[in-house]
Amino acid sequence: MITGKNYIGNQLSATANRTFKTFNPLLNIENDWNITEASNSEVNQAADLAAEAFKTYSKISGATKATFLREIANEIEALGDDLLEVYSSESGLPNGRAMGERGRTLGQLRAFANHVEEGNWVEASIDTAEPDREPLPKVDLRKMNIALGPVVVFGASNFPLAFSTAGGDTAAALAAGCPVIVKSHPMHAGTGEMVASAVIKAAEKTGMPNGVFSNLNSSGIEVGQTLVQHPKVKAVGFTGSIKGGRALYDLAAKRDEPIPVFAEMGSINPVVLLPKALHNRAEAIAKTYAGSITLGSGQFCTNPGLIIGIKSQGLTNFVNNLAEDIVKIEPSCMLHPNIAGAYQTNKKNALAQSGLQVLAGYEDSVEPNYARQVVTTVEGDTFLNNPTLHHEVFGPFSLVVQCENKAQLETIISKLEGQLTGTIISDDNEISEYPNVVNALQNRVGRIIFNGVPTGVEVCPSMQHGGPYPASTDSRFTAVGVDSIKRWVRPFSYQDWPNELLPDELKNENPLGISRLVNSVKTTANI
Amino acid sequence: MITGKNYIGNQLSATANRTFKTFNPLLNIENDWNITEASNSEVNQAADLAAEAFKTYSKISGATKATFLREIANEIEALGDDLLEVYSSESGLPNGRAMGERGRTLGQLRAFANHVEEGNWVEASIDTAEPDREPLPKVDLRKMNIALGPVVVFGASNFPLAFSTAGGDTAAALAAGCPVIVKSHPMHAGTGEMVASAVIKAAEKTGMPNGVFSNLNSSGIEVGQTLVQHPKVKAVGFTGSIKGGRALYDLAAKRDEPIPVFAEMGSINPVVLLPKALHNRAEAIAKTYAGSITLGSGQFCTNPGLIIGIKSQGLTNFVNNLAEDIVKIEPSCMLHPNIAGAYQTNKKNALAQSGLQVLAGYEDSVEPNYARQVVTTVEGDTFLNNPTLHHEVFGPFSLVVQCENKAQLETIISKLEGQLTGTIISDDNEISEYPNVVNALQNRVGRIIFNGVPTGVEVCPSMQHGGPYPASTDSRFTAVGVDSIKRWVRPFSYQDWPNELLPDELKNENPLGISRLVNSVKTTANI
Repeated sequence: MITGKNYIGNQLSATANRTFKTFNPLLNIENDWNITEASNSEVNQAADLAAEAFKTYSKISGATKATFLREIANEIEALGDDLLEVYSSESGLPNGRAMGERGRTLGQLRAFANHVEEGNWVEASIDTAEPDREPLPKVDLRKMNIALGPVVVFGASNFPLAFSTAGGDTAAALAAGCPVIVKSHPMHAGTGEMVASAVIKAAEKTGMPNGVFSNLNSSGIEVGQTLVQHPKVKAVGFTGSIKGGRALYDLAAKRDEPIPVFAEMGSINPVVLLPKALHNRAEAIAKTYAGSITLGSGQFCTNPGLIIGIKSQGLTNFVNNLAEDIVKIEPSCMLHPNIAGAYQTNKKNALAQSGLQVLAGYEDSVEPNYARQVVTTVEGDTFLNNPTLHHEVFGPFSLVVQCENKAQLETIISKLEGQLTGTIISDDNEISEYPNVVNALQNRVGRIIFNGVPTGVEVCPSMQHGGPYPASTDSRFTAVGVDSIKRWVRPFSYQDWPNELLPDELKNENPLGISRLVNSVKTTANI
Repeated sequence: MITGKNYIGNQLSATANRTFKTFNPLLNIENDWNITEASNSEVNQAADLAAEAFKTYSKISGATKATFLREIANEIEALGDDLLEVYSSESGLPNGRAMGERGRTLGQLRAFANHVEEGNWVEASIDTAEPDREPLPKVDLRKMNIALGPVVVFGASNFPLAFSTAGGDTAAALAAGCPVIVKSHPMHAGTGEMVASAVIKAAEKTGMPNGVFSNLNSSGIEVGQTLVQHPKVKAVGFTGSIKGGRALYDLAAKRDEPIPVFAEMGSINPVVLLPKALHNRAEAIAKTYAGSITLGSGQFCTNPGLIIGIKSQGLTNFVNNLAEDIVKIEPSCMLHPNIAGAYQTNKKNALAQSGLQVLAGYEDSVEPNYARQVVTTVEGDTFLNNPTLHHEVFGPFSLVVQCENKAQLETIISKLEGQLTGTIISDDNEISEYPNVVNALQNRVGRIIFNGVPTGVEVCPSMQHGGPYPASTDSRFTAVGVDSIKRWVRPFSYQDWPNELLPDELKNENPLGISRLVNSVKTTANI
């Protein structure tokens, strides 16, 4: 079922002789299948095919792209339980999560299908000519978004479906009209191949050009580096660590022709606990956060790794309750021994920091690759003076910072690195007493949450997933929701172009019936 | 009138003792006024003030920003003829051009005022909660564009008003809610100070926070480098050379926190002459292009530096006519001796390339700093094999490439670097015989023109000014038109946020009456 080969366009290919295996963290054994590393010539072939496919694929209609995207969703569904089994055996994630993530993946593909079929996303704008204008005649100008070129997608370790092979980045790029080359995540390369086979089947069924999609395997960094530096690659999407994302960003920035890299990276997702809220419901908040911290073994980019409050009886109650609740939760399996190992190392490093106190940690013996959750606490001063404490410990780890006063709370927030999210836990009107806290938090995050938890990323148009660096490399874009298509397009203007040669989106007769800005007025009317 | 001082927020300041002078290229003498270099501490003060001003300025309403922007325009107008005189004495550009460029500058400021007053630019999006959704409740999410932070603007040498102190970049950034620090162009620092005084007056009259605008003088590169590396600076706008833009881009990419740099750089703006058009009207095309090549001494980023055709009698006629016409045009003064000198050097370097033939050049003696125009020609093969010929010679220089056939024409276009514009000169239906030429050209440019000239950039919503690298550092944005505001903003989401604390753009009652995407439907209705 799993060949372990790469997809170079529509062809399975394995010309190199280096292979690797994926790992089942639940069983603590390697999976059976061998995955073949992509060779340099396969990388080049994939890039050449993508550049060639771009010539036609970038021009096909939104309706045709929608058919393709929906067919990808159908083909992934058709993989049935086999996909879910491989998913779990390569990630240790339970069947319920697998089903949920598959549903999200299909939903994203179909949402992008609807988005490009509806067609307004191209932001068509038309300014008609004024040949008699004085002192100079005005030309006819028409603008719309067009595809950037071949896009390389690096899948995420923690979302083998929704942020990997046919996940959000791929769906957005294909919707935009960009061929995609996936650098498959080595931890779930088998899952990746299965999904890639679905994409290829869909491409063939719907008549897409060969090269619109390729899937390359690699357990090292060279294939990714070569792709990011390849002159035919025009943009990069990445989900993963700060170190990995920054390395790719740096490579792309050093190219003769720099290209955009949208990397969604680390975040500790600060949660601010206001005093009245703590006074009134410390216990309930602690219970909610014990759940949020340990959800999915803490392996979410929106995991709340930092909780900040002002010293009070309420905060003490919260801390005590959190300590009690956190150890009641059964540990769960992490994605891979390497991730479990990194969690151990990073946790140990954090715990070794001077002034850090462990509130509670799960101590019973656990299965291999299972993560023992821990919550810790530290004084505001200590936190401010130790940058190590500002860094993410990927896993079920959280740090409660106890501030001396409101001023220190503000200072701490303003010194945080960029984050995906920030949360404020407040009593009904309490938050209005903290305008500076809210402002400071807003400056550091992409999404701000009132009385909730940061985990759980709704896929909808109003979701912003991406924040100031290092949450992402370019806070001007989102990685989730249909607006993520904007990462892979550029505006393009036609001046005095013959009507019959314009794309349908810009023709006088508006054959697609889309909403356009015509002489600065939004309308679906003809010209 | 001109103090030569820097504006550090609302205060004139000159703490350093190094000064420089601007130059009148028409008279070939230095201008009277001394300009004082900004000191390191002034740079830091400007950044500190901008970061402080950002806290309030980023939150004020679109209507208030509109008042500020319109007042800037009024104050620039109030400078009257004095401004135009200094403009001409620092650029050598004639009064008519000065008036035109001032009109454009005022028009841009007022267009952005209208844009933010209307308010739809924030792209408000609301997805309301579904507390009863199964299996998980849906949260309330609301998204809009917010300002990035303090922006540094590097003015252009060739547009002392429209792309400098209060030019397009500054107007867009102020409209977005970003304080602006201008690194004034040293060639027209007096003009810059006058415009800066107008901005400061407007800021004070309309009650803007101190630091919303600063203007720093420097004849070297250190001030600019310090600004781009300053932690409080969050984005950069630049118009100028590839070398300068790339250097700033590289600095910004190497920061601990990389920031976006939108640099609008060089372009040779290829013009493709199709055979039938040449057969029927070689003479008229030559005449038009002789004008376009020499317009403003060729000192436009849209100057047509490369003309490409297929060998034919028509092309020979065009070349002969262009040679005749180009020398009939009176040379004009360049902006500065350094620019005139660079033109001489680059022209000489180009002319020294093997296989390059001079078709015609103005040879009569000219005033100092005046540019002698030249048109040259080369075989397709020679052009393909010599990268030097692909580089811009900033000034009234153009190269006609004579291709062997259609295939070579396509190859040449596909090998070009990224460009702001590409033009196709075609007979009525001729262009439809060249789909590959059109596609190849589209991939290399940001704006494509049918039967026109690239010079003349209309300021309107449908204008795209920015193309694949090195035309600009990020082709996903434009430097001209109201959409250029998108460079300085990021999307931001509020989750379950109390209605009364939301910005007006996202409140249930839609107090601004803007168009919003509510549960995926565009509407101005309340919720």
